[in-house]
Amino acid sequence: MFALKSFLILGAFPAGVLSLWPIPKSMDAGSTFLKLSSQFNISISLQSPPSDLLAAVETTMYYLKNDKLERLVVGRGAYDVQDVQDAKALSSLKLSLEEGAQVNSISTEAVKNIGTRSEEYQLHIPADGTAATLTANSTLGLFRGLTTFSQFWYQYDDQIYMISAPTIIQDTPAYPFRGFMLDTARNYFPPTDIIHTLDAMSWVKLNVFHWHVTDSQSFPLELAEFPELAQKGAYSSAAVYTPANVQNITTHAAAIGIDVMLEIDTPGHTTSISASHPEYMVCNQASPWSTYANEPPAGQLRFTDPAVVNFTTALFSAVAKTLPGSLVSTGGDELNINCYDDDAQTQAELKSSGLTLEESLSKFTQSTHGALIAEGKTPVVWEEMVLDHNVTLANDTIVMVWISSNDAASVAAKNYRIVQAPSDYFYLDCGAGEWIGDTPEATSWCDPFKTWQKAYTFDPLANLTDSQASLVLGGEQLLWTEQSSPNNLDSIVWPRAAASAEVFWTGATGPSGSPLNVTEALPRLHDIRFRMEQRGVKAIVLQPLWCALRPNACDLYA
Amino acid sequence: MFALKSFLILGAFPAGVLSLWPIPKSMDAGSTFLKLSSQFNISISLQSPPSDLLAAVETTMYYLKNDKLERLVVGRGAYDVQDVQDAKALSSLKLSLEEGAQVNSISTEAVKNIGTRSEEYQLHIPADGTAATLTANSTLGLFRGLTTFSQFWYQYDDQIYMISAPTIIQDTPAYPFRGFMLDTARNYFPPTDIIHTLDAMSWVKLNVFHWHVTDSQSFPLELAEFPELAQKGAYSSAAVYTPANVQNITTHAAAIGIDVMLEIDTPGHTTSISASHPEYMVCNQASPWSTYANEPPAGQLRFTDPAVVNFTTALFSAVAKTLPGSLVSTGGDELNINCYDDDAQTQAELKSSGLTLEESLSKFTQSTHGALIAEGKTPVVWEEMVLDHNVTLANDTIVMVWISSNDAASVAAKNYRIVQAPSDYFYLDCGAGEWIGDTPEATSWCDPFKTWQKAYTFDPLANLTDSQASLVLGGEQLLWTEQSSPNNLDSIVWPRAAASAEVFWTGATGPSGSPLNVTEALPRLHDIRFRMEQRGVKAIVLQPLWCALRPNACDLYA
Repeated sequence: MFALKSFLILGAFPAGVLSLWPIPKSMDAGSTFLKLSSQFNISISLQSPPSDLLAAVETTMYYLKNDKLERLVVGRGAYDVQDVQDAKALSSLKLSLEEGAQVNSISTEAVKNIGTRSEEYQLHIPADGTAATLTANSTLGLFRGLTTFSQFWYQYDDQIYMISAPTIIQDTPAYPFRGFMLDTARNYFPPTDIIHTLDAMSWVKLNVFHWHVTDSQSFPLELAEFPELAQKGAYSSAAVYTPANVQNITTHAAAIGIDVMLEIDTPGHTTSISASHPEYMVCNQASPWSTYANEPPAGQLRFTDPAVVNFTTALFSAVAKTLPGSLVSTGGDELNINCYDDDAQTQAELKSSGLTLEESLSKFTQSTHGALIAEGKTPVVWEEMVLDHNVTLANDTIVMVWISSNDAASVAAKNYRIVQAPSDYFYLDCGAGEWIGDTPEATSWCDPFKTWQKAYTFDPLANLTDSQASLVLGGEQLLWTEQSSPNNLDSIVWPRAAASAEVFWTGATGPSGSPLNVTEALPRLHDIRFRMEQRGVKAIVLQPLWCALRPNACDLYA
Repeated sequence: MFALKSFLILGAFPAGVLSLWPIPKSMDAGSTFLKLSSQFNISISLQSPPSDLLAAVETTMYYLKNDKLERLVVGRGAYDVQDVQDAKALSSLKLSLEEGAQVNSISTEAVKNIGTRSEEYQLHIPADGTAATLTANSTLGLFRGLTTFSQFWYQYDDQIYMISAPTIIQDTPAYPFRGFMLDTARNYFPPTDIIHTLDAMSWVKLNVFHWHVTDSQSFPLELAEFPELAQKGAYSSAAVYTPANVQNITTHAAAIGIDVMLEIDTPGHTTSISASHPEYMVCNQASPWSTYANEPPAGQLRFTDPAVVNFTTALFSAVAKTLPGSLVSTGGDELNINCYDDDAQTQAELKSSGLTLEESLSKFTQSTHGALIAEGKTPVVWEEMVLDHNVTLANDTIVMVWISSNDAASVAAKNYRIVQAPSDYFYLDCGAGEWIGDTPEATSWCDPFKTWQKAYTFDPLANLTDSQASLVLGGEQLLWTEQSSPNNLDSIVWPRAAASAEVFWTGATGPSGSPLNVTEALPRLHDIRFRMEQRGVKAIVLQPLWCALRPNACDLYA
């Protein structure tokens, strides 16, 4: 263990900011300049390093050389020329695993069961030019450390340098689940956009891609066992995710430390299945849609029908087989009861089975979850399944809180594990106006816009008892895509989704021991935003450049 | 004159929508399919057609061939194969000017004094394959007609076709000023982004690019007479508009029917001048900024100082010479009086001149406006100059209403001409959250987000008497760029800025005689948005594709 001193960022760097995001749990950083030797190399002291670790080293080298990020200060890099000239040169970074650690690929480590992954690492960058060292218990930990290492460096006039040597970091995430959700059903996103988003996620140490792949509007997921679903339910033959696409995405994700949690939202949000299986639907495109759904088109699975139970269960079995990770969401939000009340077949089936609608829903869900569990997966659901419907679920089912941050306490009271995805903090689509037609004065249902500051002030443990705290696995920011497409993907997501990445990695307090706060965070967020831009992500600017170059000068109380 | 029948769009096209934006004032459209002959050509019956008209024809041909827009219906173009196969082919469009019309370039016509430009045109597309005709009083009118013509066409399987022959259009704008404002000072936009924005503006017949080029954060405008302003006041030597850039922009704009109205905001919003001329400033970067400015940094011109009056007047003379058009804005918004109250030099100068601060402001403004008038320009100001400061201005000064749509009546009461730019309808930056640091719970000052629907319902003549109506020249949507850069330019502007384009082109009633309304407009706006995307503008999606393919199916009352 390193001896770590308390560290105050703004005090230590009056002329700049420490460019790390998320900020490590524990860190001791100096203020000596250190340049990167033109001979700089990264070595791995492993007999047979896994190929994804070698790729990660290569990518890190690429970022070091191509980020070309000038410091965010007035005068930019010109400010540093003399200091850089006088600085020692760093020639190498040496990676090693701690004694006795098992050597797996990053990909293997990244998809282990949630809570069993080792992401911790220690990074030491001396000021005197001697080798930097990165150690960890797993290749995944090494990957996190490489990510941190790559964020230290600026460039000016072909000189690559950092400003805070010596640095000693001992880092480990506060929460095991740090996600981002993308809806690819309201509007379609080509696989390249998803890959690009995964890359950006990895830069801020997010580790779960929650892929809300299908919904009532379209069914882009092509499945060998159910080819008709995408064939008839996708927006077009080009707007699909083939099995090869899915494999590319999950493989790319795992190699950069990200688990893919796929969601097939059921039994609501399934109208797109009606294109191939109208016989499984109730209130199929019924009018007015607002009586039968929260948004158009209406249509839900008739879960009272044994054929529908069989179909959906087989669907989840098929999906489960395509995924390396253990998390699969069966959805379960916004079920509209009118659809069942008005459906003669549902009512007849309830009558003949002697079940209530809720009992039938419970049976349906247990069946789909059973299929997942049989495939070694952990089922995940939206909060209504346990708060509104009281469906009986396995103890280790994970519940995603979305309607309000206040609902976590109710889920915790039922002793389920929690993913924090509250709309009042984490919904990236809010505030863009109502997209439903014929409503000139309406605002978005979850107004106002959720700023990065709002997301950053989220308390994962609010309203929970100490004993309930361990139920919180982490959380995620989410993009529902009624008003998003590849055209605005980067700008609506980044850098905002980095806010929760720090909340769930660093936890309540930063390395200084003080609670995370937006004032300290803003200059660092500018920095990672500019770095993202240098890496090809069209992240939105947070402020005028005048402000970005003058840390905290545009604070309200400056 | 054509005899025009009343026309109901939704009634005539149950399977689609008429893809025109803005919708012409008068139109009679059929429902016959017509395909574009592979030999299709556009001819101009003029002895020496101006080069920009030839270029416009070439661009139109390019769009016809490259838009490749499939119809927004379920099944897309597959729906139309039989109808297209059976359709007649159009071989030519013939352009001509009406007898006696003067033959000027589009560029010449586009920068004529506001109110003296002729943009009207008549377009006839027969259904039988005989030549289509486009006539106008000016090349600018021909350009508008070409724009309309290009919007009719869809493509499927290499077949280019329209669905609404025969069509007879007689069109002319309701208002002469149809603008879009871009702030290039909070964050910088390379000239290529401006050119790209001008192109998109021309597609919806916007005709004034209001270029808010400088502000307190940066001074990117390079002027031969005042090189120090950009040299020291721009964000970097790369973030400037050189005289050549400005000429390229104004030349490109004029050739596609757009006048460039440059704004050097004075005497507030000028802190960036302090980098080269601190001697002209009051409250220069004073702290706390919130006492001295609406946003950081504080700093205003000391207009009581004769040297400042001389400088600013010479600055406007220099700027005026670089612009082909007649409109130049001297700004005048958000003047902070504390800056002058707390400045000893200002107070001494007022004492020695015997003027009040307001009298001195009036004198300053008259001087800068005098310089513009001497160069043949028409000065433009923000509303505070006449509502808060009662500065005496020339009768033909144009006043931009921005604080509230309610303020137009007060400006009209003073008998000034009006450009409608109200924040409560037209500010594109609203609703994205507070960008000032240290304010986790704050929303943007002009929340909520101004949807296209909101902008579309703007009434240019609200609260005005019949006799005041002629004072309204038109209006503009505006992008202030605290939170914008090239990364989100297209998605924050388009297709929203098309809303006011139709409000000010088509006016209160559409070709059917009914008032413009969002229900009818939405499918057409989807169409122009998709067309923009085909032409390389990353416009934001308005709804899930499911909705875009089913006109009005996602309306609230569907």
